[in-house]
Amino acid sequence: MAKPNLLIVGAGGVGAVAAHKAAQFAEDFGSIALASRTEAKLQQVAQDVVDRNPDITLGEDIVTETVDARNKEEVASLIRKVDAGIVLNLATPYCNTAIMDACIETGADYLDTAVAEEEHVENVPAPWYANFEWPRKPDFDKADTNAVLGIGFDPGVVNVFCAYAKRHLLDAIDSIDIIDVNGGDHGRYFATNFDPDTNLREIREDVIYWEDGEFKTIPHHSRKMTVDLPVVGEHDVYSMGHDELHSLPRAFPEAKRIEFWMGFGERYLRVFDVLENLGLISSIPVEVEGVEMAPLKMVKAVLPDPATLAEGYTGEVCIGCDIRGTKNGKPRRVFIYSTCDHTECFREVGSQAISYTTGVPAIAAALMLARGEWDPKTMVNVEELNPDPFLDVMPKVGIDWKVMDLPVDGSWPETSGHNSAGSDASAGQGRA
Amino acid sequence: MAKPNLLIVGAGGVGAVAAHKAAQFAEDFGSIALASRTEAKLQQVAQDVVDRNPDITLGEDIVTETVDARNKEEVASLIRKVDAGIVLNLATPYCNTAIMDACIETGADYLDTAVAEEEHVENVPAPWYANFEWPRKPDFDKADTNAVLGIGFDPGVVNVFCAYAKRHLLDAIDSIDIIDVNGGDHGRYFATNFDPDTNLREIREDVIYWEDGEFKTIPHHSRKMTVDLPVVGEHDVYSMGHDELHSLPRAFPEAKRIEFWMGFGERYLRVFDVLENLGLISSIPVEVEGVEMAPLKMVKAVLPDPATLAEGYTGEVCIGCDIRGTKNGKPRRVFIYSTCDHTECFREVGSQAISYTTGVPAIAAALMLARGEWDPKTMVNVEELNPDPFLDVMPKVGIDWKVMDLPVDGSWPETSGHNSAGSDASAGQGRA
Repeated sequence: MAKPNLLIVGAGGVGAVAAHKAAQFAEDFGSIALASRTEAKLQQVAQDVVDRNPDITLGEDIVTETVDARNKEEVASLIRKVDAGIVLNLATPYCNTAIMDACIETGADYLDTAVAEEEHVENVPAPWYANFEWPRKPDFDKADTNAVLGIGFDPGVVNVFCAYAKRHLLDAIDSIDIIDVNGGDHGRYFATNFDPDTNLREIREDVIYWEDGEFKTIPHHSRKMTVDLPVVGEHDVYSMGHDELHSLPRAFPEAKRIEFWMGFGERYLRVFDVLENLGLISSIPVEVEGVEMAPLKMVKAVLPDPATLAEGYTGEVCIGCDIRGTKNGKPRRVFIYSTCDHTECFREVGSQAISYTTGVPAIAAALMLARGEWDPKTMVNVEELNPDPFLDVMPKVGIDWKVMDLPVDGSWPETSGHNSAGSDASAGQGRA
Repeated sequence: MAKPNLLIVGAGGVGAVAAHKAAQFAEDFGSIALASRTEAKLQQVAQDVVDRNPDITLGEDIVTETVDARNKEEVASLIRKVDAGIVLNLATPYCNTAIMDACIETGADYLDTAVAEEEHVENVPAPWYANFEWPRKPDFDKADTNAVLGIGFDPGVVNVFCAYAKRHLLDAIDSIDIIDVNGGDHGRYFATNFDPDTNLREIREDVIYWEDGEFKTIPHHSRKMTVDLPVVGEHDVYSMGHDELHSLPRAFPEAKRIEFWMGFGERYLRVFDVLENLGLISSIPVEVEGVEMAPLKMVKAVLPDPATLAEGYTGEVCIGCDIRGTKNGKPRRVFIYSTCDHTECFREVGSQAISYTTGVPAIAAALMLARGEWDPKTMVNVEELNPDPFLDVMPKVGIDWKVMDLPVDGSWPETSGHNSAGSDASAGQGRA
């Protein structure tokens, strides 16, 4: 079988990480194409990839192409032009439907890391995947083509962790708490770690989580708990709506509760509160001296570009799944997680850990497709696939993972915080 | 002498108050013309004036005219068209130079309530009046025409209070503290009481105050004191740059310190701090998806229109001058002040007290010119004129004023707060 050509759409922070990682695994792909709306960004990313990978030749092993990724015809033409076998969509979620449809038309495999969104639409009803993705499943079936939805870290690796837990660690799953804590410090007054548009919107929306067989909706920041995680230590985390909650209940119908929790610092919450109360976190355009503009666009324009945060970003992130259930008739609670160091990410690929933890799993998933390890010939959410080969390759691409047992009473052991990986952690493999 | 026609430029909150007050004193003017960029605003204000003043006929006693007030030729044409003898400039300070020059050209008297500003220019050096106003004094001399600068409340009435104190209450002035506290509640999360552009800019700028014979510059909100004022009670006030500080040192060179203090609540400061730190209080345009826009314009667009705050606004404002010096060889400290009730203002003219306290003095000043009480035949700041006839007429136009002696040790008597007017207050006259 000829190695498939990889087309990466999007040259933001995550796109850059994916480009570096694809280059490190260039032997698995025929060629690598980077596409984005902005030529300058493409050039910068491609040049950096070449600089860090002496074996890679620009214009040969890696090519750049400008594209309007919201235009299906343009994307389809590009797929044909670069003869892409795998399309990795790392553009804004507003582009997802155009890129999916281009893959259906051309028969290329499709990967993404976030659920599709429409501009100027807020508080979409659950499950989100039912709006744009799942209705296209028959089209992928017909095209005999793979679509793997949501394979960044969260959604993505956390879904895989759930599949792994069900396969190896627990006989039955009672509850899943996905916990995402960024214990890092970017040294700015306020910044979002990825596109402010996506980040502030998802935080602002009503929280949807799964409980007792149905989606429940609550105001944002209205459910809070304190966790004590490996490496990053003790943090307040808040229940938040997140993509993975919209597919996991289908794969784990026995879970009484599936919830996503994000850590927020005092400063972040204060700034967010002000922006929200002023109406500045809105994607609905207002008139400003004759010009129609969404307030959020202005906020995005004044906030630091997430890509610029990488240099000098210190500290770590910890993202994992606190999964409770039973094993051999006894209660068991496991925490499956990864940690990632901002400074190390910057040293390796010039990015911060938030971009890194999204881009690395995306390339690990592209490797799964390229190597034929995943080949469902239909559309799937990633938890529907075999987690084992993916979790075997992910550390080699750059992110290790671990499992630790936690007290079944729901508490966090004192030893877990502020030191690396609890002593009862069963290790994945070291970073390649 | 024929009664002069009055042209009011600006149909915002202050313009509306001025229109109402001019209508109440219609017998002092030949005719009243309202001009603004926006036809709809003009119509609304004019209709409301007619509704509240049955003797006034729209199109006869009061006419409306659209004008681009930044265009000198347009303003001059309008002055000629309505044969204005007095032009009251209540438009944005960006229009001041065009309107002044139109008055010089046509020989109409000029009144304003705020120092001229240029868009996209911040932290202008002191004294501000030396930039655009004072250099035009010879032109007003040549035109044999009156220009009275800064006759809202602050600047304006507070300058008059200083002149009054020097004339009647103190032999020598040591220091002047102008204190402005809005003890009202508009019931919104955050709002500015007049144009957010002007308000947030003036608060954001470095504070310039007068001390020991020179202008001193300090960061905003870096000097704070607690006052206990009549009616509004105890408040924290912060040293702030303000127009009147840029003319008063010329009229009161013996004062060792002249400073302006504004009350700010905890919420206001928190919101302001966030907006400032994010770079949203900037009049320097940034690029937002190909459009150049000043962040402050977007903030203005999402904030409540100050005119909409009036309904339901409760509480009072207190603005006055704490003036210290000597009388008959002994230390004396007086507080000359007015208070104003938001609810009463709304009942009378449909406005809140901040607009009211600016519009009323402006019309009182127009009356001074119309009646020949003020006729300097040159450009003056208002403290250069005789304060007595103005302070005699202001209560009849709608704002009372009082004088109280304060302890010379700088303290505030307990009795001053939370009750109306200290017992030692020497009263002005009641509202007409």
